[in-house]
Amino acid sequence: MNSELIDSLVIDGQTRIIFLIMDGLGGLPKGERRLTELEAARTPNLDSLARESVCGLLDPIAPGITPGSGPAHFALFGYDPLKYNVGRGFLSAAGVDFPMDRRDLYARVNFATVSKDGLILDRRAGRIDTETNRRLCQRLSETVRLSADVQVFFAPEKEHRALLVLRGDDLHEEIADTDPQQLGVLPLSPRPLADRAKRTALLLEELLIQAGGVLAAESRANMILLRGFARYRPFPSLAERFRLKPLAIAAYPMYRGIAQLLGMDVLRDVDTLAAQFAALKNYYDRYSFFFFHVKGTDSSGEDGNYDRKVAAIEEVDSYIPTVCALKPDVLVVTGDHSTPAALAAHSWHPVPALLSAATCRPDEVDRFGERDCLRGGLGRMPTMNLMALALAHAGRLTKYGA
Amino acid sequence: MNSELIDSLVIDGQTRIIFLIMDGLGGLPKGERRLTELEAARTPNLDSLARESVCGLLDPIAPGITPGSGPAHFALFGYDPLKYNVGRGFLSAAGVDFPMDRRDLYARVNFATVSKDGLILDRRAGRIDTETNRRLCQRLSETVRLSADVQVFFAPEKEHRALLVLRGDDLHEEIADTDPQQLGVLPLSPRPLADRAKRTALLLEELLIQAGGVLAAESRANMILLRGFARYRPFPSLAERFRLKPLAIAAYPMYRGIAQLLGMDVLRDVDTLAAQFAALKNYYDRYSFFFFHVKGTDSSGEDGNYDRKVAAIEEVDSYIPTVCALKPDVLVVTGDHSTPAALAAHSWHPVPALLSAATCRPDEVDRFGERDCLRGGLGRMPTMNLMALALAHAGRLTKYGA
Repeated sequence: MNSELIDSLVIDGQTRIIFLIMDGLGGLPKGERRLTELEAARTPNLDSLARESVCGLLDPIAPGITPGSGPAHFALFGYDPLKYNVGRGFLSAAGVDFPMDRRDLYARVNFATVSKDGLILDRRAGRIDTETNRRLCQRLSETVRLSADVQVFFAPEKEHRALLVLRGDDLHEEIADTDPQQLGVLPLSPRPLADRAKRTALLLEELLIQAGGVLAAESRANMILLRGFARYRPFPSLAERFRLKPLAIAAYPMYRGIAQLLGMDVLRDVDTLAAQFAALKNYYDRYSFFFFHVKGTDSSGEDGNYDRKVAAIEEVDSYIPTVCALKPDVLVVTGDHSTPAALAAHSWHPVPALLSAATCRPDEVDRFGERDCLRGGLGRMPTMNLMALALAHAGRLTKYGA
Repeated sequence: MNSELIDSLVIDGQTRIIFLIMDGLGGLPKGERRLTELEAARTPNLDSLARESVCGLLDPIAPGITPGSGPAHFALFGYDPLKYNVGRGFLSAAGVDFPMDRRDLYARVNFATVSKDGLILDRRAGRIDTETNRRLCQRLSETVRLSADVQVFFAPEKEHRALLVLRGDDLHEEIADTDPQQLGVLPLSPRPLADRAKRTALLLEELLIQAGGVLAAESRANMILLRGFARYRPFPSLAERFRLKPLAIAAYPMYRGIAQLLGMDVLRDVDTLAAQFAALKNYYDRYSFFFFHVKGTDSSGEDGNYDRKVAAIEEVDSYIPTVCALKPDVLVVTGDHSTPAALAAHSWHPVPALLSAATCRPDEVDRFGERDCLRGGLGRMPTMNLMALALAHAGRLTKYGA
């Protein structure tokens, strides 16, 4: 799908589109069961929706490719995930509402515990509390000073996670992660991956020495690990591209960050599913596109907890009637990627999807599950195609060519 | 599908390919019925063909994209519809057999009725007859003179539709339509959409003033509306690309125009289905590729007439035995796009397709319908892939690579 093509065909409309995204929805059988989490879940409401909808399976990036949350969401919103891939640091910056500047270089920070010899003992510093995180970020921001004309900011996220921002000229993102992703070894150096990033790498080495000094007295968070280096880049908004007025209803900062990058309005204080669905109803008249993000399906999958993922799906199912009562012109239910509990990780498996609209051509799917979706009218297609389809069913795309 | 790849593998053959294109074939349920037009139609001959064929669903451009007739047909013939998109004016010029020149700029003309104040009262001038159209085109061609060294031709199509040709140097197609597509407003000006088209826009303004003068005394056709500006461009022919000797059997000028652009021979005076199928038989020995275009399925769909579209499909079905009696090496039955009566317009829904050849791998489809085709061996694929498949089954493509 050519994204310029979609953009060139967009027309105004009064219609409303809801994307109900169950993070990590796709699954696998686990143990004795021959059913995926979605197939095992009792989902009478999603099943009845599936009967009236067109179903299928989506490949977030391409068959065999396991996506991170960033590219998987970009694809959902019709942004080519190969073109719009960005480092984790960038998503962190957006997620914590950091006031971004075009000269910025971002990185994701993990506070970590290292031994006297500098060997990594805990990559998450015992999951220090957010208050400690905030105190340490403030001290680092005040103390660390680089030789060059480069400003340094540390901003706290949750628990052991924070954001590092370098602001200045000639900073580059081609820097290897310093997090070796294992214990008992030294952190890696911020190795330049391109010639032009050599100066940036030297600045980061200087920064890490100073940070080690600032944190030396801490019992747990006595070092930082850096990953996901990313320069600032602008994104065209959903309003510019699709003439949509979008609202994100997401409990987790990173997804709010992604939404913010794409110019969505973002709700705060929607920490439970109940609060999220109540907000959907409250704000329904004021927006034309809703990104509704469910985290529970992914976190249970990541934890390898099959039963909890089944329960998370069933909980969402119980809210489907309240969504349908809003009578959206287009309702999409899918995930950003698969997170099978059997793998306890994101995976490359295609994601079941359902699109409900008055203009759907019926298929024979009468249950919402991976196997059922194989027989669906959407077939198997790249996730990137989804937004164009949703816009088409919402009467927001005009004809291509004479 | 990479079109250069196909071309590079084409070899000579004695085989014959028929593309039986039911325009707007794909449909949707309407009213009480849960069946599309094709599913509702009694099509014993197509069903029996489907049992021996490989079936599937085709996306003319991409999921969600509603195509015009031009790009939809280009895709059928293996011409990348994004690369070969052309304005309506160009298709009109080809359709009326206008002797084209590489310096030409074309536009589609609608004769229209405007009030004393210039407000549009009827965008089709009460569908004036073709004779009046011819008289007005002749008068306009004789009278309108532009200041620059640019020739002007008006050529009649049917009823209120005509073709405008400007011939000269430095003419450009980046001009907005003057047809506002609504009543009670002034025609739009021919606004330049690129800097280089500014001079062309000025010439067109001059032309519109003169045309208004020429038509002032007419009771109905007292103004013209212009749309689909397009510069001349050459197309590689089916003979060059695929070593086929192609014949188009189409009752409507625009489809003959498309065929002509692609270097097909074009039959005239085939105004009924009976005449078209008789011509197929008569010319069968002299050509290796047949583009057989059925209009009734699209026009009934555009009119929102479900029953008439069902009947049009059933009429085509009754001729299938005469087609099969010719024993074509490859017979494809599909549409260029969907035109569901429920929408009374072209749509983005994928198009059912059937390919019959001795080398088909059997699938389990035993009826020709949208839902049935979902289980077909072609799967769901871009229409662009169809020509390569047809050539392969006709033994006209060699191996790629060693």
